[in-house]
Amino acid sequence: MTDSRLAPVLDRIDADLQDALDRLMTLLRIPSISTDPSYKADCAQAADWLAKDLATLGIDAATRPTPGHPMVVGHGGDGAAHLLFYGHYDVQPVDPLDLWKTPPFEPELEDTEHGKVIRGRGASDDKGQLMTFVEACRAWKAVHGSLPARVTFFLEGEEESGSPSLIPFMQEHAEELTADLALICDTGMVAPGVPSIASQLRGMLKDEFTITGPRIDLHSGHYGGPGLNPLKEIARIVASFHDESGRVAVEGFYEGVHEVPEELKRQWESCGFDEKTYLESVGYSQPHGEEGYSTLEQQWARPTLEVNGLWGGYMGPGSKTVIPSKAHCKITCRLVGDMDPDKLREKIRAHVAERLSPDAKVTWDSDLEGSPAAVMNTARPEFEAARGALTDEWDREAVFVGMGGSIPIAGYFKSILGMDAMLIGFANDDDAIHSPNEKYNVESFHKGIRSWARVLAALSEKG
Amino acid sequence: MTDSRLAPVLDRIDADLQDALDRLMTLLRIPSISTDPSYKADCAQAADWLAKDLATLGIDAATRPTPGHPMVVGHGGDGAAHLLFYGHYDVQPVDPLDLWKTPPFEPELEDTEHGKVIRGRGASDDKGQLMTFVEACRAWKAVHGSLPARVTFFLEGEEESGSPSLIPFMQEHAEELTADLALICDTGMVAPGVPSIASQLRGMLKDEFTITGPRIDLHSGHYGGPGLNPLKEIARIVASFHDESGRVAVEGFYEGVHEVPEELKRQWESCGFDEKTYLESVGYSQPHGEEGYSTLEQQWARPTLEVNGLWGGYMGPGSKTVIPSKAHCKITCRLVGDMDPDKLREKIRAHVAERLSPDAKVTWDSDLEGSPAAVMNTARPEFEAARGALTDEWDREAVFVGMGGSIPIAGYFKSILGMDAMLIGFANDDDAIHSPNEKYNVESFHKGIRSWARVLAALSEKG
Repeated sequence: MTDSRLAPVLDRIDADLQDALDRLMTLLRIPSISTDPSYKADCAQAADWLAKDLATLGIDAATRPTPGHPMVVGHGGDGAAHLLFYGHYDVQPVDPLDLWKTPPFEPELEDTEHGKVIRGRGASDDKGQLMTFVEACRAWKAVHGSLPARVTFFLEGEEESGSPSLIPFMQEHAEELTADLALICDTGMVAPGVPSIASQLRGMLKDEFTITGPRIDLHSGHYGGPGLNPLKEIARIVASFHDESGRVAVEGFYEGVHEVPEELKRQWESCGFDEKTYLESVGYSQPHGEEGYSTLEQQWARPTLEVNGLWGGYMGPGSKTVIPSKAHCKITCRLVGDMDPDKLREKIRAHVAERLSPDAKVTWDSDLEGSPAAVMNTARPEFEAARGALTDEWDREAVFVGMGGSIPIAGYFKSILGMDAMLIGFANDDDAIHSPNEKYNVESFHKGIRSWARVLAALSEKG
Repeated sequence: MTDSRLAPVLDRIDADLQDALDRLMTLLRIPSISTDPSYKADCAQAADWLAKDLATLGIDAATRPTPGHPMVVGHGGDGAAHLLFYGHYDVQPVDPLDLWKTPPFEPELEDTEHGKVIRGRGASDDKGQLMTFVEACRAWKAVHGSLPARVTFFLEGEEESGSPSLIPFMQEHAEELTADLALICDTGMVAPGVPSIASQLRGMLKDEFTITGPRIDLHSGHYGGPGLNPLKEIARIVASFHDESGRVAVEGFYEGVHEVPEELKRQWESCGFDEKTYLESVGYSQPHGEEGYSTLEQQWARPTLEVNGLWGGYMGPGSKTVIPSKAHCKITCRLVGDMDPDKLREKIRAHVAERLSPDAKVTWDSDLEGSPAAVMNTARPEFEAARGALTDEWDREAVFVGMGGSIPIAGYFKSILGMDAMLIGFANDDDAIHSPNEKYNVESFHKGIRSWARVLAALSEKG
């Protein structure tokens, strides 16, 4: 499609790239780790910075307090189409810190074999992606004096810590936050250079439990033998979560899971995903999930029960002959199809309770939430329009793909606001998000900005 | 036995109790945690304090440097009998710190339902016990101007961290450290008020391994499914260490283990050990070791494979959707009979290696040592003489018992110096050694000092 409004906007984006990178660097220097209370002030600072930056685009933007970290909400532009853009300014914790080659919050441009990258926590997830949309709007504003559509900005600061304030805030401000369509930039490309629209996302269930053996820590000489060791107990229980085929062994776990339609499976197989590179890049010679499913199916269409943290006893230097009183385990499940997070939580808790030894006790963290899987409404014309815009920018057919990650917001937009969402992102599998040395390719950032400029053009023609 | 020299010494001990407690408190205030390098200076300070204190008894004492923490060696007294006394001035780490009712290194006298106790790290293991012998010598010196026997003091600062410097030091100073008999005060009483001489000790094997899954930490959405999770891997392997009957499932683990002779079993059953209280005091309704063995057998005569630390992934507040790169496990085995620590280490490492999934790697800490079990030479006349002395002090028949703990020094005295050892201690099962809120009964301290005064009398008559 040709749109006379677009060419000057794209030129402006190219000319402004260095300044756009500098703005991203400024945002990346704010350590907005939402899950750790000691970074509360930093989260607030990131929100303030974004509200001020949006104001420079003529957006009526402000931070909005919540019981947790603030939201940033802004309104601007005009036109028939009304779009909501969502991203999150909070980031994951940075441990283990000693594995970072550069300080996580001192971002740097770095030349790599795959081109220039922006290195630092949040570069890809999600500050870098969020700014691709903001910069596209900045270029539209600079060239045409306004955005091509009505745009509502909705930026969250709790995405990496379970979004505790999100649902109440959306319910309270439903009218203000409802648009024709939500755009979300928090996903990746199925392969380098292959523009991707996520059409299905896995849901998420988080839980944490503590097993108590003896009332106090014990001397492993005095009680070694008769003593119940909660570390052995928790290891036995964690081991019982899966069978030898990699299948989750919790009774009823697969309720609501559907097989992938053959036709979609074929699309996935031809979407350019390079399984070998994907696995080898992290040191795997083979997939380690459920037998009988491809890597993409294991990741996009099959549920998981993952252990994210396991600890107890002495972890310091040297040795300590102790039988600890307590052992701890953090788990997350990825959900697909119609799996119900609340029912699943009960099944998992029952699985653990049934396997406890006499004298062992289990307690559960009650503050961890869940969200079901989400399937996008790809029948809407905006999806084809966006696919065309992405195909033009990347000179490669854009594809509908699944996503292994969980972005509950997409489901909430539908269930709370009755609004469909479209997920477009430019991250690469090797971005190391949630890991040390996170990076975002400058190509993703640059062509991502250009992509949003094209998508805005395509969607604003519709009106 | 009556010994005219003894009565005034016992009177002196009673009169001097408060000062003896004050001296112990001073030693307890020094945080001499040997396993943590950041406490190196404190270990040196504790050694200096002891050398100076021994000098006040007319002992020619000095600290001796080692590659690790210093030894304290002193010589004094005279007489036909030549005794070596061993104790250790280092203590266990104090974590979890938040479970301490009082700061671990700010010792206090506290009234409890079981009488007055000294509360603080090291109060029982081993500073309080070590000082019972020192105070007994102080009283002898004060009353009679000298000790009743030649005494060599040998105080170590690495007992809680595997004694890396001990064997080379003993080899290098074999002549200086060889006496007729070694006295060791680092054990407990089989039941409150029942004086006990340890006649067999379990050995110890320490090891630590790390399992690596992916090359870097991974996002549990992107790789959850195909990703090999080292936490699941280590849980499965730890769970494989034991079968359902509580027996260690490592092939060949029980090589060199002998059943307890019926006659000794009968002695143990009548030694006053209160199994119910012993288990209930820490929250157990039953023993959790190998089926078919009594609690005492599980603790004194059966080997164990214990997990002392297990960790990996995210352990902070909130949740982190990560598949970590590494998982870690610290283990200790308690050895009995003729079990060979070095052969056993290889069996355990083979057990782990055989169970690793493809793409998983294991690495082992090579710095952790082992020591075989030890059986005392109770046929020597000093054992009966000491048993009589203890019976007199406690007004309760003293007994020969096993010990679940490992005190490698006893074996080294025999293997390196050809010297038998006698283990007498006054700790109680509820002393919470190696745990938060460690304590030592004032009765143990007071009657412990009196007991050593009597033992010194009994052993010095022999000459």
